[in-house]
Amino acid sequence: MSDITVIGLGAMGSALARAQLKAGRSVTVWNRSPDKAGPLVADGATAAATAAEAVAASPITITCVKSHPQTTQILRNAANALPGKTIIELSTGSAAEAEELAEMIEGAGAEWMVGIINAYPHMIGDADTVLTVVGTEQQWAAHAPVIQALGGGSVHVGDQAGMLAALFAGLFTVRQGFMWGMIYGALACKKAGIGLQTFSDLVPISMGMMKPYYDYFAATAPTASYDDPPATMRTYAAALEDVLASFETLGARDDLPRLFVEMTHKGMAEGLEDKALTAVIDVLSRDG
Amino acid sequence: MSDITVIGLGAMGSALARAQLKAGRSVTVWNRSPDKAGPLVADGATAAATAAEAVAASPITITCVKSHPQTTQILRNAANALPGKTIIELSTGSAAEAEELAEMIEGAGAEWMVGIINAYPHMIGDADTVLTVVGTEQQWAAHAPVIQALGGGSVHVGDQAGMLAALFAGLFTVRQGFMWGMIYGALACKKAGIGLQTFSDLVPISMGMMKPYYDYFAATAPTASYDDPPATMRTYAAALEDVLASFETLGARDDLPRLFVEMTHKGMAEGLEDKALTAVIDVLSRDG
Repeated sequence: MSDITVIGLGAMGSALARAQLKAGRSVTVWNRSPDKAGPLVADGATAAATAAEAVAASPITITCVKSHPQTTQILRNAANALPGKTIIELSTGSAAEAEELAEMIEGAGAEWMVGIINAYPHMIGDADTVLTVVGTEQQWAAHAPVIQALGGGSVHVGDQAGMLAALFAGLFTVRQGFMWGMIYGALACKKAGIGLQTFSDLVPISMGMMKPYYDYFAATAPTASYDDPPATMRTYAAALEDVLASFETLGARDDLPRLFVEMTHKGMAEGLEDKALTAVIDVLSRDG
Repeated sequence: MSDITVIGLGAMGSALARAQLKAGRSVTVWNRSPDKAGPLVADGATAAATAAEAVAASPITITCVKSHPQTTQILRNAANALPGKTIIELSTGSAAEAEELAEMIEGAGAEWMVGIINAYPHMIGDADTVLTVVGTEQQWAAHAPVIQALGGGSVHVGDQAGMLAALFAGLFTVRQGFMWGMIYGALACKKAGIGLQTFSDLVPISMGMMKPYYDYFAATAPTASYDDPPATMRTYAAALEDVLASFETLGARDDLPRLFVEMTHKGMAEGLEDKALTAVIDVLSRDG
């Protein structure tokens, strides 16, 4: 028996196994192409001959392959070894795929946790690396040390397998909002005859204001405390209307600023003009 | 005679006048309510009795009042003093208002530059404070030292009075893209039962990736170098489709991710699927 099994020994899976060895745990490993196990065995891990043997070797198995469906397939073939075990799935996939995997594991008499690794392999084991994990409170209490050996800043976000797809969608939308803000900003500048080198050189001015924007969001959205903001929804609406007018005057495609104006007006139509801009979250979340 | 005149002595105008004094220039000041001049006179400035007298006192006048139309009004009343002078306008306004002001100044036989101050008053005079300025190349060559005394990182972006409204629209769209990314991200999390405190606490993970997103933009957009990107438009499209599917599954309002997907598909329909995502700028800029 060993303390932990790791299935999937790509760059990430190997980093996960190595972090567990470094944390002083005995580790069993398995990969579809067995040659990947060599360097880990040299570092003290034990190679299993089959996935079922790997799962049988430890109370906890970390899976890190291509996607949830591939994990489901591997564990179906190892179903006899599953009863009484805990699977910590760190592959990626949609909410539906995560739920299908969770159902299969429960059906086989095992427990599951599912996580997203918000890091590159070289960051595994760092104190500020974050894995976002779902599972029950009891599982988190029991297995947090194993997960924190992979990322010291790891957090438990809930107990529904599908939640991580929503969280990924939310965080990716933040990044894409910034990216498309640059793309549409470039459109306006292009139409005005401002070189994109000039615009690009100036974007860091706006990046310097990302932290205040985030602080404003963080101070209002989590507690729905929308009263007496430093800048009201009305103020943002006026600035956004000016921006939209600039896009129109320039003949620049304006879908993005138009959407911002329309959503802000939706909030104001509900009487929220003196509230924080973030109060629109409550309004928009009533739509489907 | 003095070296520089400053008209408008609010918090910002006073900071501008003080920065010129600190740079060793003699300064004449004027404000509609004259009591604002007191502290500056104590610091060595000369107070003018009227706006016309203020403009007459120096070859260069910096104006920093409420808005372009107010500057236009003040300068109309001082028109006799304008011939041969240079006005550096640092109030705010739309492209049309900037163009009206520029026309009036030219009509009165003076020259104009228009700028945006990307800073708070306490940052005036700092080496990394940025004023973005329009005016001719010759004017920039002649007056850059005066402007750099206000912000050491100041840049010349072109020669059309209306350009700054476009630049503001572009940079504000970048910030609002980030803000609405958080708002829509919050919607997805809310529908998934993930607390907005959890989401808000995790947003800094995405903020840590803003710099790579910016680097990608800066390495591609200014030179339209869209070949062999680290991630292709097809890759972004697939991730955005997953995100949109998550919003749909959750029953979360999806206007923003849907717009991103649609615009990415527009780029792919033009055969750009192996190019950088930023190649959509060229496609979208053909629309009006």
